[in-house]
Amino acid sequence: MSKSVFYHAGCPVCVSAEEDLVNLIGKDQVSIVHLGENQSRIPEAEQMGVKSVPALVTPQGNVLHINFGASLEDVKA
Amino acid sequence: MSKSVFYHAGCPVCVSAEEDLVNLIGKDQVSIVHLGENQSRIPEAEQMGVKSVPALVTPQGNVLHINFGASLEDVKA
Repeated sequence: MSKSVFYHAGCPVCVSAEEDLVNLIGKDQVSIVHLGENQSRIPEAEQMGVKSVPALVTPQGNVLHINFGASLEDVKA
Repeated sequence: MSKSVFYHAGCPVCVSAEEDLVNLIGKDQVSIVHLGENQSRIPEAEQMGVKSVPALVTPQGNVLHINFGASLEDVKA
């Protein structure tokens, strides 16, 4: 995995913070996955260790949970 | 403010995650402040809106609380 993956669920509170982070890292260095719209990717996120969104999974596989929008359980509901 | 500021307190659990993030953004784009060693900068962090460490304050002034190492109250103690 050479890109970071940014998982979110459209959390309106965090949009501006998320955009800041993506801009800092560089848009071409981050894949953005909207788990609310792509629920089929929730298992992949869980396997990476994502517990809540928004979260950034780095190329080294570390999960950074950023602020707190919603738990994955909430996104599934 | 043109650089991001990364506030931490030496949280051993988060060191690897922090290094990942700093590498992603670019070391020359981030000022790193160890609040445990520089307690005089805690008021500045609080004024920015930092509630816990590690946290990244973006050039736009957004505070991203990343995972959870310790509250600022704990760092003061």
